Amino acid sequence: MKHLFEYNWQVRDEWFERCRTLSHEVLLQERQGGVGSILETLFHIVDVEYSWIRAMKGLPDLAPHFEDYKSLEQVKALSENYRQDIIAMIDAWDNEWTYKPVQASWMEGTFYCGEVIRHLIAHEIHHVGQLSVWARELGLEPVSASFIERDLMQKD
Amino acid sequence: MKHLFEYNWQVRDEWFERCRTLSHEVLLQERQGGVGSILETLFHIVDVEYSWIRAMKGLPDLAPHFEDYKSLEQVKALSENYRQDIIAMIDAWDNEWTYKPVQASWMEGTFYCGEVIRHLIAHEIHHVGQLSVWARELGLEPVSASFIERDLMQKD
Repeated sequence: MKHLFEYNWQVRDEWFERCRTLSHEVLLQERQGGVGSILETLFHIVDVEYSWIRAMKGLPDLAPHFEDYKSLEQVKALSENYRQDIIAMIDAWDNEWTYKPVQASWMEGTFYCGEVIRHLIAHEIHHVGQLSVWARELGLEPVSASFIERDLMQKD
Repeated sequence: MKHLFEYNWQVRDEWFERCRTLSHEVLLQERQGGVGSILETLFHIVDVEYSWIRAMKGLPDLAPHFEDYKSLEQVKALSENYRQDIIAMIDAWDNEWTYKPVQASWMEGTFYCGEVIRHLIAHEIHHVGQLSVWARELGLEPVSASFIERDLMQKD
């Protein structure tokens, strides 16, 4: 699982870099599908990941508002701000947590930590797939979604 | 990992069902991003998954041609035809295979089985993200990409 988180972070950081060529207006333009604009999608990925990581630790949702992060630099900074905490949790992952129950303030139901971890992996890859279509529509080459050729699984 | 394959198959089967409302022309229409049309994307997901599964087993690529599978029913049948073989491999997965080398006839380089397994998971989710944008553009509600709420991880 850890390698798929590292994949997502590497791909996300490349998208932050790739999007630097886009204007503020293009980043915020409403698009079909997903959560709306390119920037709001990046914000949503960052927000959802940390919200669930905190929920798994029994901590309240910080619920940042997109209105306060309306530039690429701010969303990137938010992503970096959360990253160390998430790395710490993923590094400390113990398979005994797989069926540990998790509840979230923003939705009903009780889930397992093992489900939430997989949900986060799939959630980011899915939204990045959406970014790739929007990028092509703008004439921007999407970031490669390939897991292989990234040297993410070097032998220890 | 197994649960993420099961997630992908469940989502894929729902897309086959969802796409039944689309005409042949809409399914084959060229779109921005990804591998082109909705149907070719589904075919590509099915083809790539089985090609790598066979490569991991040291078997040659079957390399089906999209020209021979130009209906939703044919691509769905191909997916079902391959499924049992893939389930057998995923069920038999042994962590000792993580660093087993894999070579593919369609690309240069040597990869690890552990990388290829993760690549397949990410590959399908990424392309399904693209389908979700195209569906919205067509006024079609996309299949849910949520991992949670699918009861994929019931306790034994």
